[in-house]
Amino acid sequence: MSFHSMWAELLPVGRSSASGGYRRYAWTGADADCRAWFRQQAEDRGLAHETDRNGNQWAWLGDPAAGDAVVTGSHLDSVPDGGAFDGPLGVVSSFAALDELRHRGARFTRPLAVVNFGDEEGARFGLACVGSRLTAGQLTVEQAHRLTDGDGTTLPQAMEAAGYDPDAIGPDPERLARIGAFVELHVEQGRALDLTGDAVGVASAIWPHGRWRFDFRGEANHAGTTRLADRRDPMLSYAETVLVARREAELAGAVATFGKIAVEPNGVNAIPSLVRGWLDSRAADQETLDTVVGGVEKAARAYADAHGIDLAVVRESFTPVVEFDHALRDELGRILGRDTGLRVPVLGTGAGHDAGILSGSVPTAMLFVRNPTGVSHSPAESAAEDDCAAGVRALADVLEGLACA
Amino acid sequence: MSFHSMWAELLPVGRSSASGGYRRYAWTGADADCRAWFRQQAEDRGLAHETDRNGNQWAWLGDPAAGDAVVTGSHLDSVPDGGAFDGPLGVVSSFAALDELRHRGARFTRPLAVVNFGDEEGARFGLACVGSRLTAGQLTVEQAHRLTDGDGTTLPQAMEAAGYDPDAIGPDPERLARIGAFVELHVEQGRALDLTGDAVGVASAIWPHGRWRFDFRGEANHAGTTRLADRRDPMLSYAETVLVARREAELAGAVATFGKIAVEPNGVNAIPSLVRGWLDSRAADQETLDTVVGGVEKAARAYADAHGIDLAVVRESFTPVVEFDHALRDELGRILGRDTGLRVPVLGTGAGHDAGILSGSVPTAMLFVRNPTGVSHSPAESAAEDDCAAGVRALADVLEGLACA
Repeated sequence: MSFHSMWAELLPVGRSSASGGYRRYAWTGADADCRAWFRQQAEDRGLAHETDRNGNQWAWLGDPAAGDAVVTGSHLDSVPDGGAFDGPLGVVSSFAALDELRHRGARFTRPLAVVNFGDEEGARFGLACVGSRLTAGQLTVEQAHRLTDGDGTTLPQAMEAAGYDPDAIGPDPERLARIGAFVELHVEQGRALDLTGDAVGVASAIWPHGRWRFDFRGEANHAGTTRLADRRDPMLSYAETVLVARREAELAGAVATFGKIAVEPNGVNAIPSLVRGWLDSRAADQETLDTVVGGVEKAARAYADAHGIDLAVVRESFTPVVEFDHALRDELGRILGRDTGLRVPVLGTGAGHDAGILSGSVPTAMLFVRNPTGVSHSPAESAAEDDCAAGVRALADVLEGLACA
Repeated sequence: MSFHSMWAELLPVGRSSASGGYRRYAWTGADADCRAWFRQQAEDRGLAHETDRNGNQWAWLGDPAAGDAVVTGSHLDSVPDGGAFDGPLGVVSSFAALDELRHRGARFTRPLAVVNFGDEEGARFGLACVGSRLTAGQLTVEQAHRLTDGDGTTLPQAMEAAGYDPDAIGPDPERLARIGAFVELHVEQGRALDLTGDAVGVASAIWPHGRWRFDFRGEANHAGTTRLADRRDPMLSYAETVLVARREAELAGAVATFGKIAVEPNGVNAIPSLVRGWLDSRAADQETLDTVVGGVEKAARAYADAHGIDLAVVRESFTPVVEFDHALRDELGRILGRDTGLRVPVLGTGAGHDAGILSGSVPTAMLFVRNPTGVSHSPAESAAEDDCAAGVRALADVLEGLACA
């Protein structure tokens, strides 16, 4: 089945006719449809299909027990109203690259697998990369069992309803020990390749990133009758903090975003008692990130003090910088430049990936495919047909270089 | 029953032990308890109790059919987690003032009634003063029948469940024609009396006020990977608009509040596609209000343009200035100053009231009782015992002056 046919088959799965975006959330019907599609692709190619204890799907060419396997793949789930490319491009390209290698008559010297990691986006339970985190031991069974979606359904309940055993989940070091290299192809979630004019790039690192919750507490009061001088309105400090976050990020060459907010009582004629805003910030290195977040927090405290607002700042999550394996990255550069003379930019990324989780356990690399607008996590996410084809060729070259004689 | 006993009886009704605030919403169990309390007060005093077609309760002394009645009262329902005084102070003071007049041996020359207007706060169905609006013909039966609460229950369903006939609601001109004057006592929802050092004041007018919805539409994108320069983040324009609204209101001596917000997709790692903020603004006169809102909208458009944001501004509701009856207001001033030499400040208010609705149909006045912190619509709302007593005396004086020989 060609890249085009695979892509066309996946395209309608979990797509909202209202938004045009995807709603492929972990352990839902749309997720099951994606999984059935993956299994069919494996079977059509005579690959051995298995689902591991954490719900990740594997399609094996060769004997996994032989070890030193080369694994490629990505994920099929989506953020709420996400685009078609984030995740699926990597999985479809993996199967297409394998087809290309067979077409080339490649002779495999190492086992090769395509993987579909479960629940990468964390859209349902609020934690990203659940499948790979569990496998790598970066999420305990107890923590995973406490995950609960917006409707109050727990992860174990959701897994059980989908026909999986939530008591089987946990670290899987034997599986990781059999992997010699993991390469994830992904649509770029930014415009670096568009700006350099290249179809394909190699990842250097995932920027350190974190989420901080800012709780601005003031005093609820009547919006019509309370004099401005008597107000303790937390919306004002919040607004000032939103603007300072942008300025601090601009100065530092980082990114900072207030994209989520919760207000109490959230009434049109009520001065809020609480404005809770979440800051997402990322930078190329730890020191820069510390500067940005420290600057935002300091300014927020000054604003809050000026308005009689109590401010609490809580770091809800944090991921240090992930440097991808230098040897593997250089190897990819050599392979990709060898025959084609292709220039392969090396670029950092602000997004988390299963590859980032696995990089603590196995040599890991990433390939990015140009995204002309840089838009991602939105139905407007896109990649040109030629660039997708270039991505498949690059991934085939990499797999051939790593796994074939 | 003394003011104290009445107050103590009402105090636990509909109070949330979690917040300490009141949840007395229209046609709920707490509302029924308030209504039973009102009926009992009427019966204890030998007053004729009736509930009108719109669910407002009346306790009559004398023959309503005689006409030219003097009516006093307020409401017993609350905003979500509101305080104990907004509404109930007026109803309890009305019964206490009637007791005081009987204690004085007053001889009534006009019929007198205490009223409890239904659903004044609009906490459940989103529209304030439903009881008085229906009676005054300022809300049609069709509009009222379409009102729906957050759980999808319609006003007719809620009324029926509470034992009332939703098909009986509608304008009640005969009832209004029998009223010669309406006086509502209310806790002040601001600090004007605290600043002048007076226990009781008379209302001059209800400020013109309105609600405007600002829809800032940008582009959803990944918060970690989208360069600042490539973003169309509507949260930035929203934040700038919040701050300019405060500045415009300060300059004009008005009030302006962004207290309610809705964000899409409202994800920590997503640049919003939409930030919807509601502006509540009020000023002493129409021209000032136009200046404030016009200034906010103009600045918001400039900010939106600078960030590539589409802005739509919709006026969702608007109430012109309500000038209370000048003759009645002056009469109240004379009555209150006559014996006591009491200085009675005349003050405007930014809050809507049943008195404002009725003022279009009958001569209407309001008395305010000092609120030491100005806080209202919050459990922290308060009034001193001495000031409540002064309020009862003032209301008794007014009723005696208007309705007694």
